[in-house]
Amino acid sequence: MNATLLDTEKNYVKPQKFSFENFVCENGEVIPYVDIAYETYGTLNASKSNAILIAHAFSGDAHAAFYHEGETRAGWWDNMIGPNRAFDTNRFFIICSNVIGGCAGSTGPSSINPNTGRPYALDFPQVTIRDMVAAQKKLIEHLGIEKLYSLAGGSMGGMQVLEWLVSYPHAVLSAIPIATTARHSPQQIAFNEVGRQAIMADPKWNGGNYYGAEIPRAGLSVARMVGHITYMSEKSMAEKFGRRTKSAADSTKFHADFEVEGYLRNRGDFFVRRFDANSYLYISKAMDLFDASGGRHLSEKFFELEAKLLVLAFKSDWLYPAHQSLDIVTACKITGVPVSYVEIEANYGHDSFLVETEKQSQIVRHFLSRVDELIY
Amino acid sequence: MNATLLDTEKNYVKPQKFSFENFVCENGEVIPYVDIAYETYGTLNASKSNAILIAHAFSGDAHAAFYHEGETRAGWWDNMIGPNRAFDTNRFFIICSNVIGGCAGSTGPSSINPNTGRPYALDFPQVTIRDMVAAQKKLIEHLGIEKLYSLAGGSMGGMQVLEWLVSYPHAVLSAIPIATTARHSPQQIAFNEVGRQAIMADPKWNGGNYYGAEIPRAGLSVARMVGHITYMSEKSMAEKFGRRTKSAADSTKFHADFEVEGYLRNRGDFFVRRFDANSYLYISKAMDLFDASGGRHLSEKFFELEAKLLVLAFKSDWLYPAHQSLDIVTACKITGVPVSYVEIEANYGHDSFLVETEKQSQIVRHFLSRVDELIY
Repeated sequence: MNATLLDTEKNYVKPQKFSFENFVCENGEVIPYVDIAYETYGTLNASKSNAILIAHAFSGDAHAAFYHEGETRAGWWDNMIGPNRAFDTNRFFIICSNVIGGCAGSTGPSSINPNTGRPYALDFPQVTIRDMVAAQKKLIEHLGIEKLYSLAGGSMGGMQVLEWLVSYPHAVLSAIPIATTARHSPQQIAFNEVGRQAIMADPKWNGGNYYGAEIPRAGLSVARMVGHITYMSEKSMAEKFGRRTKSAADSTKFHADFEVEGYLRNRGDFFVRRFDANSYLYISKAMDLFDASGGRHLSEKFFELEAKLLVLAFKSDWLYPAHQSLDIVTACKITGVPVSYVEIEANYGHDSFLVETEKQSQIVRHFLSRVDELIY
Repeated sequence: MNATLLDTEKNYVKPQKFSFENFVCENGEVIPYVDIAYETYGTLNASKSNAILIAHAFSGDAHAAFYHEGETRAGWWDNMIGPNRAFDTNRFFIICSNVIGGCAGSTGPSSINPNTGRPYALDFPQVTIRDMVAAQKKLIEHLGIEKLYSLAGGSMGGMQVLEWLVSYPHAVLSAIPIATTARHSPQQIAFNEVGRQAIMADPKWNGGNYYGAEIPRAGLSVARMVGHITYMSEKSMAEKFGRRTKSAADSTKFHADFEVEGYLRNRGDFFVRRFDANSYLYISKAMDLFDASGGRHLSEKFFELEAKLLVLAFKSDWLYPAHQSLDIVTACKITGVPVSYVEIEANYGHDSFLVETEKQSQIVRHFLSRVDELIY
């Protein structure tokens, strides 16, 4: 996305941490001590009215934009966040935090359980999207922010956006759920379940107790490969790989004949170095259990909303198909919540929200400027 | 599909075997001794002009219809094959054989290698769709049949149909490729590759040498789960499972909360009892390597065809999307091969060719009757 920058042209950001005690999860279990890793970009204004929270997707983290010292690759949504970008850091104060249950600085199953001195593993409570959002709310309050100017996220980030609206309807002026759903379909649950089964089938997973030993590399890698297929579209795969074959240097049977096979194996191998297998189980399960509507019609949960919504979907996204976004739009229409909806033409499948920068940027920029006009 | 039948109302069939020696595979390797398991339904007429070959899909077998003695469930396409069914056994002589490389009676990686006295495992040659078809041709000749009246199959069965047309253009009067493609897209390859990786990631797979020991149950089960998701549609899953949850009898973490999870686990468990993991690797790889067009435009391979084609696709089939069937139709149009094409409305996804009986039956019956009128 970015042309090579000189170090002096880069924007830098430092990871931060916010901690609190005795977090009561939705299921009643208590986490005695919680760290939340977060980053901020831009400057909070005096009235604390220019804050935008960015919620990350399944395997994302708090590093949404800019560079860490010495880093060659910017944060995961750097194409959307920065000076004069869609989430303009010249105007807005952007916050992104790693979800509770995660493995990139926030407390999760790989964290030390203070009651035992060892990692929680499966003793960690089954956190939910609501728990993730409750932890974010504490962070926002800690920063002195009463109302978010906006709130945005794709995929599981969009679920957090919806949960914010439902849990804290008076704390949000506008919201941008992207390529997401108010609840997983059985197909989405099924894909997640296959990933979990692949991890748990790996003997090295060992009932979740692999910390300090070999990690369930093979199982986690297979899980990620399934994920990657669902994040791309048939078309983007065809354009990226075609049926091109790799060199036959590896002559063993069932090596990667096709480039797409090698690509998937590489993505799987790369992923296991940065992601905790138990976090995979917990977070994917949190997504499956999520239902913004609480099993009723979503509109019943939207009556208290004060926010304006921009709902975005992508034509080639078959994992979170547009009809799921339209369910959110319908709930807004029923309850009179102001909503704009765009189904963006982009070939990258579900990944579009991460890589399609041009149209998405224009639409988001325009929406954020309209929120401003109407509310201030 | 079938109402419960009295035993006296059932049609019975006996498994048969055809054997030959020194089969030279497409890659030049020789299999010294080959068994082909097959079944036949109906009666071959005196002129041997009423034979229809049915080619099975990835995990299918020779038992396409009727019952084996003592069996409670009929063959996999019993809803399409039988007296007065689409493939009418009152008129036609139907043949179905298990593919070479398979594990349901035909020689494959689990068969004994006569050179070692032990199962081939990965010493089995990488057979191709062309090899499968070449073995079928030997069977057809053994039965004294020069020309097939027709030839039909879905999914990998459809690939065999296309390969027959290309390899033996003068031996086929009509052909029905269903829910198939002339070559796999990278997305299709990717799904197969994930299945292979899941198997090979299971330590019990042991480089393919698990015969006589524990089988790689966990890996093969995960592979099958991925497959099942791709065989169904978002809609058929939603109708079958919704977000219904199972009883909470199993209170361990990451148990099957949702019915769809339990279903997939059951399908996986069931599959490992009947399918050989190495056959999974070989046959899925054969599908990925298949390219009826030999890397050129398919039409270039169709000039010698004497057959009429009926090409069928299903609207909800996202694994073998209709545009792949239309590529076959286009190749026919370019070369003047008579072709009918129907995209059938059915909600079952790729599985539609197995379970949607009504429309498919009507179309196939009508097509087979027209072939008859025009040719005889």
